[in-house]
Amino acid sequence: MPADGRFLKACRREQAGGTPVWFMRQAGRYMPEYRALRRRHSILDLCHHPDLAAEVTLQPIHRLGVDAAILFADILLPFEPLGLGLSFAEGEGPQIARPIRSAADVAALPPVDPLEDLAYVLEAIRHVVAALPAGIPLIGFAGAPFTLASYAIEGGASRGFAATKRFMHTEPRAWHALLERLAELVGRYLAAQAEAGARALQLFDSWVGCLAPEDYREYVQPHSRRAIELARAAGVPVIHFATDTAGFLEDFAAAGGDVIGVDWRIPLDVAWQRIGSARAIQGNLDPAVLLGPLSTIETRTRDILARAGGRAGHIFNLGHGVLPETPVEALQAVVELVHGQ
Amino acid sequence: MPADGRFLKACRREQAGGTPVWFMRQAGRYMPEYRALRRRHSILDLCHHPDLAAEVTLQPIHRLGVDAAILFADILLPFEPLGLGLSFAEGEGPQIARPIRSAADVAALPPVDPLEDLAYVLEAIRHVVAALPAGIPLIGFAGAPFTLASYAIEGGASRGFAATKRFMHTEPRAWHALLERLAELVGRYLAAQAEAGARALQLFDSWVGCLAPEDYREYVQPHSRRAIELARAAGVPVIHFATDTAGFLEDFAAAGGDVIGVDWRIPLDVAWQRIGSARAIQGNLDPAVLLGPLSTIETRTRDILARAGGRAGHIFNLGHGVLPETPVEALQAVVELVHGQ
Repeated sequence: MPADGRFLKACRREQAGGTPVWFMRQAGRYMPEYRALRRRHSILDLCHHPDLAAEVTLQPIHRLGVDAAILFADILLPFEPLGLGLSFAEGEGPQIARPIRSAADVAALPPVDPLEDLAYVLEAIRHVVAALPAGIPLIGFAGAPFTLASYAIEGGASRGFAATKRFMHTEPRAWHALLERLAELVGRYLAAQAEAGARALQLFDSWVGCLAPEDYREYVQPHSRRAIELARAAGVPVIHFATDTAGFLEDFAAAGGDVIGVDWRIPLDVAWQRIGSARAIQGNLDPAVLLGPLSTIETRTRDILARAGGRAGHIFNLGHGVLPETPVEALQAVVELVHGQ
Repeated sequence: MPADGRFLKACRREQAGGTPVWFMRQAGRYMPEYRALRRRHSILDLCHHPDLAAEVTLQPIHRLGVDAAILFADILLPFEPLGLGLSFAEGEGPQIARPIRSAADVAALPPVDPLEDLAYVLEAIRHVVAALPAGIPLIGFAGAPFTLASYAIEGGASRGFAATKRFMHTEPRAWHALLERLAELVGRYLAAQAEAGARALQLFDSWVGCLAPEDYREYVQPHSRRAIELARAAGVPVIHFATDTAGFLEDFAAAGGDVIGVDWRIPLDVAWQRIGSARAIQGNLDPAVLLGPLSTIETRTRDILARAGGRAGHIFNLGHGVLPETPVEALQAVVELVHGQ
């Protein structure tokens, strides 16, 4: 195994000889190579075929010069073995054919074994790890219990998450049963990804910021904690990511994670102080800044680096995924700025 | 003029003999009376006809027992005299026929005189004020410059506000010119509403929480400040409302407002401490809680009241508008709890 590079060192808050940088959705629609593949294959096709998933995962590595790869996959893939029915309509996002609407729906969920039912993801990881340049680790990932539950209940993307919150408050026992199931599934799935070769794991709780702090603590935090514990048992660092957590960042961090991901709605130094110096931090450039002029990209990137102040444990990233309309050059500029500081 | 009731006293942080309560969108789709009217009239019809707008405004007053009325209108009505083309597709939200896409579009905006071009709103205010029970004041309102600009640029509702942010960063001069225009319009429109009889004014910056703190300070704050200054010149209290401001609440409050509105993503006591004791505060129950059982509604309502601790200057409200699927009984229960504390 080659010496750990900047990314893994930063996960452990070791001096890393410069700030590492990678981007959520760095394998995606902003890249011409990806769009070319997508003309021939659906999103689910790319996920289901380890050789294609590996190809997409590797596309941005040389092109951008990032410090880590992230597996091309979707957080909702576990919905297939869960029998919920998953599809992606063009430009519409994910659609769930059989959403969860009752305690009976939760009780009827079939058992899922990630080693078997998501074996194609683990196979893609082995493909990627064999092909990655030395020193570039692969990050595995999964959706967090809340974010998965919100898709399962809403039946797709949502603006207000009203159905999710209604279910949570009206059917608390079924809610907790659902999140326990998802936490076990996700925790074991993440651990399996580490065993297949992922050197770090990210838990995406992308939409949990829609909650009030007391709802987070009561209905979500124990389940995120369980998923992270199961994942960490595999011996690799876990990044705990969400957007919109400025109102309950302490509670979010308390659920676990070696690295806490924050979006752009809070200054990085303020966030790091609230998270505490015992954690690494990942973030926090607004992806929309990359649609603007280079001068703004430069100012904002340098501002985040200044707020991190060279302390060990900062991983540069966007506050959420790369937007499809992002110019490749903008991402390349950020990588150069971060590496050249 | 009758003695000021609880609501206006709380706006001035005077002991009000109990916490006042009203709800954003208390005149709206959750009420059978409103839905009955909507079967015969479009949203814009209701807005354009002062007698209908007044009828809708008054519907929830007796039914809920709230301490203030809020005018039935839409924040996007100024888009009609601005020539942007406004319509509401069923279940789709607002649609802007001629969105702003360039500096030339900004320069071409025609002058708007709220006294003339939005005279029907002022007429509706006079209708409402004549019909309101003694001691129940009417709140006038307008969209804040940022939130209006975001609709004008996106052409409707948005999830990520990417086009808005791109315009802001790429065309900063045109952006500031647009927001200056909107701030003047909105400020004069609000002042005119006070002159027509509104006893308080609310500036809705509903979507500004999508921004990074430095973007808020640079691209938005001066314009919100200007709008609030113009509105306050009419001599009535101004409520400055947004959602998702936990990351930059101090900056948001610094733009002005006698009362600062906060959503549910931050505990009320934490928010009030950050805003400072020189301001009143409005909020902060998650509207989705009203879709759940009465026991949860009660716990959450009492928790907010406990966090306010009976200090002068708390106006109970939701953190955003009433959801259409809310039972009337849930709102009635909150009013009883707040008044009965």
